[in-house]
Amino acid sequence: MTLITLTTDFGLVDTYVGAMKGVILNIAPDAAIVDICHEIPPQDVMAGALALESAAGYFPEGTLHVAVVDPGVGGERAAVAVEARRYTYVGPDNGLFTLILRRDPVLRAVRLTNPAYRRHPVSATFHGRDVFAPAAAYLAQGVRLEELGEPVGALVSLNIPEPAESGGELTGQVLHVDRFGNLVTSVTADTWGRRSGGLDPSAVRVQVGGVGVGPIRSTYVDVAPGEPVAYFGSGGRLEIGVRNGSAAATLDAARGSAFTIRR
Amino acid sequence: MTLITLTTDFGLVDTYVGAMKGVILNIAPDAAIVDICHEIPPQDVMAGALALESAAGYFPEGTLHVAVVDPGVGGERAAVAVEARRYTYVGPDNGLFTLILRRDPVLRAVRLTNPAYRRHPVSATFHGRDVFAPAAAYLAQGVRLEELGEPVGALVSLNIPEPAESGGELTGQVLHVDRFGNLVTSVTADTWGRRSGGLDPSAVRVQVGGVGVGPIRSTYVDVAPGEPVAYFGSGGRLEIGVRNGSAAATLDAARGSAFTIRR
Amino acid sequence: MTLITLTTDFGLVDTYVGAMKGVILNIAPDAAIVDICHEIPPQDVMAGALALESAAGYFPEGTLHVAVVDPGVGGERAAVAVEARRYTYVGPDNGLFTLILRRDPVLRAVRLTNPAYRRHPVSATFHGRDVFAPAAAYLAQGVRLEELGEPVGALVSLNIPEPAESGGELTGQVLHVDRFGNLVTSVTADTWGRRSGGLDPSAVRVQVGGVGVGPIRSTYVDVAPGEPVAYFGSGGRLEIGVRNGSAAATLDAARGSAFTIRR
Repeated sequence: MTLITLTTDFGLVDTYVGAMKGVILNIAPDAAIVDICHEIPPQDVMAGALALESAAGYFPEGTLHVAVVDPGVGGERAAVAVEARRYTYVGPDNGLFTLILRRDPVLRAVRLTNPAYRRHPVSATFHGRDVFAPAAAYLAQGVRLEELGEPVGALVSLNIPEPAESGGELTGQVLHVDRFGNLVTSVTADTWGRRSGGLDPSAVRVQVGGVGVGPIRSTYVDVAPGEPVAYFGSGGRLEIGVRNGSAAATLDAARGSAFTIRR
Repeated sequence: MTLITLTTDFGLVDTYVGAMKGVILNIAPDAAIVDICHEIPPQDVMAGALALESAAGYFPEGTLHVAVVDPGVGGERAAVAVEARRYTYVGPDNGLFTLILRRDPVLRAVRLTNPAYRRHPVSATFHGRDVFAPAAAYLAQGVRLEELGEPVGALVSLNIPEPAESGGELTGQVLHVDRFGNLVTSVTADTWGRRSGGLDPSAVRVQVGGVGVGPIRSTYVDVAPGEPVAYFGSGGRLEIGVRNGSAAATLDAARGSAFTIRR
Repeated sequence: MTLITLTTDFGLVDTYVGAMKGVILNIAPDAAIVDICHEIPPQDVMAGALALESAAGYFPEGTLHVAVVDPGVGGERAAVAVEARRYTYVGPDNGLFTLILRRDPVLRAVRLTNPAYRRHPVSATFHGRDVFAPAAAYLAQGVRLEELGEPVGALVSLNIPEPAESGGELTGQVLHVDRFGNLVTSVTADTWGRRSGGLDPSAVRVQVGGVGVGPIRSTYVDVAPGEPVAYFGSGGRLEIGVRNGSAAATLDAARGSAFTIRR
């Protein structure tokens, strides 16, 4: 029994996800399908990349991760299957797998060009159903990666802004705002470990748009309700929240907002 | 292992869907339950019928499709199980299966009247849990259709407006607006094939409320961002969208809006 | 194959639920995971308790119910696993299981303190992934309850306001407003049976904020569209709705609003 996860921006209001599951189960009746998330903001490849980074790595080795956030569907972008050390990924070659592949090194990748492993005719707007779902299902049935199409050299990669250091100050960016209004940033626990020079997180000052958020704390409840707080979130990235409130609203911050960490 | 799909207007905010799954698994522990959609607009039987049409057909033969969009629950409408060539359908007899049954001819149908295959007492407002879920689960366990109740003659059918032809112009209707604001219409690829007299889709002009949408194209990316575009959508129906925007907003169209296709 | 249900306030916009499923399947590959609800209003333990009450009891005996509505995460509250007569519950010890445990008597309970059955490091903000999901998965794999940690004496219990009787009038409270605007109240069918003195439901008058709702009826369709109606809902509680409308809007009622039942 192969595990197949789905991550898309299709939402749950329409039946796109249901159609993909039907296609998968028609080809691979024993596959177990698990939803990671279908509420990626429409066509927001960065949000999709963060979603995969935050959840895909908890699944058992050998899981097939299918992801479809695909503003270029029907255009020039390639459709790919990527075999990495732990997992295999299926989706558009638009950078969606950039972050998760930093943790799961690529072994080889192919373009999904073999017509034998697609539905026909291929819809111009729904490769999730006609290209990606069948590719994953055939892989689950034991079809080998190289049968799906010709090898790909370099995959498209997202340009994730690296935190910039200057004058003892680290400047990062808000990459994503979650549903509670927490700010997910470009500073990972790993980056912090490498760039902070062993600085005590409780001795720094985080600032967003001129507003002080205080030091990096270990949990929400270290501040009073309504107060802002910085902490390494469950996804391994520095997050800025407001206890029982919305940091995005309170701090007037959005994706792309800069913030600083100084001693 | 039997596959059971669920399509409802219960939403995911309440626990109605969870309760239905509990009832099914209590009777049929080995059933695999897959959600098609639970965000059908409340009591909107037409939207439910379109949802089933767009996704149910991708599932393996023998799948049990349970659908509950049921404004008449607790009233006079019948509860039915319908055995068709490919699938079995369970739900209210209110036209919900009209579109999918055009593609999957009915073999026989019964009213779900046998008390042995219902929960007791039957809630006046939640037949999904007390009538439809048990019926599907018992069918999955091998109970024969005719044991569920007495045969039904004709099923209730939705009145779907057929596209009207006049003076070389085909007039259709918007049947549904999806979450991206795309207009799903009464013109199917099949209708077009039969009614267009071999006309080249790229040679026609689609018009919505006096606004020209241009010819029927094969994909979104054939127009510039912000431009309207007509195309046969992934569900097999003519759709009118706006690239990276909302056709409903841009063209001031809603369900029931008329549109024309002329040479 | 063990059945594990999930009930949380994580929503489906982020990947918290996906991460929990990954953790569970990594430890217990054969577990079948079923969602009860992930749209519990954030940090609303009462709404979570009602959700469990309304759906958990339909699942097969032996099901593991994991619930995470956890405003105290990272603070002092205990994490527990509770073995009751029919089911085992895993979640924070904050009253979330109060209502379902009234119907499913506790046999024994433990605090989830054994580090061998947690993920490491434990996130300060996401015990769903690092504490509750692993505990449930190890229980599914056959780990015995007492291995997860030391026994708990009394569990935390929610203070649910009991309906008050005075001068032949029963005063109850609105506990929850569902997505259709129906008011779910503190009067259960059981309470009614014990407290009504055999009174005919159709002979009483329900009043919300001075507005008469009429007698307790058996179904929605006993009133005209737009009219308010009281009935015992599918969850076993007295509900007040408005046919094809919202009782919360029409009757200006919210959680905590009082209502009366008099002869």
